[in-house]
Amino acid sequence: MFTLFHHSFCPHSRFIRLALGEHGLEMRLVEERAWERREAFLALNPAGTTPVLTAEGQPPIPGAGLIAEYLDETHGADLGERRLLPSVMAERIEVRRLMAWFNEKFFEEASNPLVTERIYKRFMSEQNGGGAPAADVIRAAKANVRYHLAYIGWLAKTRNFLAGDRLTYADLAAAAHLSAIDYLGDVPWIEDDAAKAWYARIKSRPSFRPLLSEWLAGVPASRTYVDLDF
Amino acid sequence: MFTLFHHSFCPHSRFIRLALGEHGLEMRLVEERAWERREAFLALNPAGTTPVLTAEGQPPIPGAGLIAEYLDETHGADLGERRLLPSVMAERIEVRRLMAWFNEKFFEEASNPLVTERIYKRFMSEQNGGGAPAADVIRAAKANVRYHLAYIGWLAKTRNFLAGDRLTYADLAAAAHLSAIDYLGDVPWIEDDAAKAWYARIKSRPSFRPLLSEWLAGVPASRTYVDLDF
Repeated sequence: MFTLFHHSFCPHSRFIRLALGEHGLEMRLVEERAWERREAFLALNPAGTTPVLTAEGQPPIPGAGLIAEYLDETHGADLGERRLLPSVMAERIEVRRLMAWFNEKFFEEASNPLVTERIYKRFMSEQNGGGAPAADVIRAAKANVRYHLAYIGWLAKTRNFLAGDRLTYADLAAAAHLSAIDYLGDVPWIEDDAAKAWYARIKSRPSFRPLLSEWLAGVPASRTYVDLDF
Repeated sequence: MFTLFHHSFCPHSRFIRLALGEHGLEMRLVEERAWERREAFLALNPAGTTPVLTAEGQPPIPGAGLIAEYLDETHGADLGERRLLPSVMAERIEVRRLMAWFNEKFFEEASNPLVTERIYKRFMSEQNGGGAPAADVIRAAKANVRYHLAYIGWLAKTRNFLAGDRLTYADLAAAAHLSAIDYLGDVPWIEDDAAKAWYARIKSRPSFRPLLSEWLAGVPASRTYVDLDF
């Protein structure tokens, strides 16, 4: 049994929930407000960031990238042809490249500023950086979403899934980050049909359902958030 | 034969040079000034960052984390007991945790701001962000180096190498980032004897020698940079 220290709108945590779901693994969820820097949480992950996965007999596993590698090494082969980090080297490289693209670049340029400004800041004390959202940060992040969406659309048009013929971690990472900001209505789906059609496919997977049921008091979901034919 | 697109003072590139050296693999080095966003380089790595490794028959491999995983998967077993990403799961987790710690956290908080302000900016055009170094950025980064150095010292005192009994990617990543800013004289070694003794051991390895011979016109190396008994 796994325990995942996560936040409902942390894009990296969402990615790992999707990955556990696709692996068919059960998890217990513990909500962590990383910005509160809870001492027991820092003992699990000195970097103080979500997600952290704990698994029996192993040290805590911090960070989306590490957890994905761990899940593949321990449970990847069980998925056979549906393995989320394929075994052919050229495909591994492409999947890992796109995982890093979304977990690092998209996070830094788009999902993290949007989620921080529009969600986390509501819960942060002033001392932790809380307060009103910064309009200029949001504007810059929304502009970045547009070029990322075009890149996703280009990949989705060129291939069946983002990294190739089959569903991989790359799709789950991309969809996880998008879903957090889609809740906020910050994805201009109208601009890219291919990206939208790809996202509709990922969103309709059973592993996605738990994410779509996450609602935040005081922050209504966008009109299309739960709609599978948005 | 590998080709590494790198920059002499890019800490991630230094890490990969050490990793290739420890694996006993030859490489051809191509200097890349990532901030110039050369078109042919963006085709290799759309994220536009160094390092990128090219290996025959594989797509380009971008980023320190991906390259380390690739090298371990293709050449790790050859090292036997000296494998840089150990095969026991608990050790893999700890090595990957520390690799990410240095390649992401230390990079963001310390090595990247220092190298950018004090080295890259000298070569950047004004349009690319060049100009005089920002004193406040340097001050903040130097303060961060101190707490990271204490953490390294604590790890080195508790264990033989940073992640455990043997040399791993964790040591190479930490030493690579430190070496780039040690050139600038930005590591207060006097504050932590254990960290200093650990670094002296890594620095005296043959894989380190090529890094110590990198000199930058107009930016003299710190007094202790090449000294193995600094």
